[in-house]
Amino acid sequence: MSLKLFTHPLSQPCRAVLLYCRMNSIPIQEVFVDLGKGEHKGEDFTKKVNPLQKVPVLHHGDFILPESVAILRYLSRSFPSADHWYPKESRAQARVDSYMAWQHLSTRNFGVMYFQTLSLIPKMTGKPVDEKRAKEAKVGLENCLNDITNYWLAKGRFIAGDEISIADLLAAAELEQPGMAGFDVKKYNGRIGEYMATVREKLLPHYDEIHSMCHKIQQKALAKA
Amino acid sequence: MSLKLFTHPLSQPCRAVLLYCRMNSIPIQEVFVDLGKGEHKGEDFTKKVNPLQKVPVLHHGDFILPESVAILRYLSRSFPSADHWYPKESRAQARVDSYMAWQHLSTRNFGVMYFQTLSLIPKMTGKPVDEKRAKEAKVGLENCLNDITNYWLAKGRFIAGDEISIADLLAAAELEQPGMAGFDVKKYNGRIGEYMATVREKLLPHYDEIHSMCHKIQQKALAKA
Repeated sequence: MSLKLFTHPLSQPCRAVLLYCRMNSIPIQEVFVDLGKGEHKGEDFTKKVNPLQKVPVLHHGDFILPESVAILRYLSRSFPSADHWYPKESRAQARVDSYMAWQHLSTRNFGVMYFQTLSLIPKMTGKPVDEKRAKEAKVGLENCLNDITNYWLAKGRFIAGDEISIADLLAAAELEQPGMAGFDVKKYNGRIGEYMATVREKLLPHYDEIHSMCHKIQQKALAKA
Repeated sequence: MSLKLFTHPLSQPCRAVLLYCRMNSIPIQEVFVDLGKGEHKGEDFTKKVNPLQKVPVLHHGDFILPESVAILRYLSRSFPSADHWYPKESRAQARVDSYMAWQHLSTRNFGVMYFQTLSLIPKMTGKPVDEKRAKEAKVGLENCLNDITNYWLAKGRFIAGDEISIADLLAAAELEQPGMAGFDVKKYNGRIGEYMATVREKLLPHYDEIHSMCHKIQQKALAKA
């Protein structure tokens, strides 16, 4: 049964799903969707790929599944993987679930807002940065970094304890995003820097390969910052 | 082992968790948290109840679990319930997961934004409505209602098909919220109205009891609108 992921290299949840597939040798066909050209809003994509007009979306045979968190859980049930990625023990699983639910309106929300407000929107529209929204994004992102430091990483090397899980794939992919707008979260405090380095090391060489376009844009943005 | 939910009647995810407990006869102690007085930001709550300063949060013995989506999944594993609430079959489960992931940055995000921008913030601060943000909330909420109509409810009476699931508890609780700021989503189109009525009917008498404060505020707001 064919397994396809519709994806873009600058989408954080796409990168998280691809990292999971690489780390677990899941043979997935990547289909590039040109978000810059609005391909995801087009009739063909909307009718045949994902009516919700978003990536990532998984096609497994005739089964269509949007949303990275649901995709990661579905893949963990459909293909063999080590238990630490999405633990079967109920409380350990609940911890992973809890981060994956929390991140939508925190790390994901403010990481995207920071990148889009300070980089993507001004570049695409030629308009100046919306300063009120930029401040909101910065405060929101800093609150997230504090919660990640003081709560999610307080009890272990990774979010769900001392082993890596799908929660870390989502967290790290999101935390890379603001770097493309000049905010290197790895330097926010020692614990965040250490965490990002530990996740990257655990996922090499796939981490750098999947973040290659993102890291190139970061280098330019951080040199200017 | 004691089972406590820290909750507030005007919090949508709290209402979804309580509805699940009532429908499945799960004996849970409700602990009221005075959000209006900022109790969730206080030292005692932050240290002992939930460092993330949010409700709902579940305490099951010494296990502390924030986030409604994680709580609903954990309860479905810990206490007996009919399979339709959170199906074991992988693709049916993925459909429920997909809505629960999608809703954070859509129904949940814009439902809250609409209620807070048009009602809560002006009432608490005495300042006029932020019109730019109000427009953003309205457009966002209408897009959600269209996606719910055209995608999530296109294949059955409920979000995951013809039987009610935990996705519907979250959806209905969120869709009640804008009514308190004068936007009766049940009248947006026939399909949304029919869906809300079907969910309510399935969950009576608990639905009306748990929404009693919310419905009182709605009556006043909708009479004015």
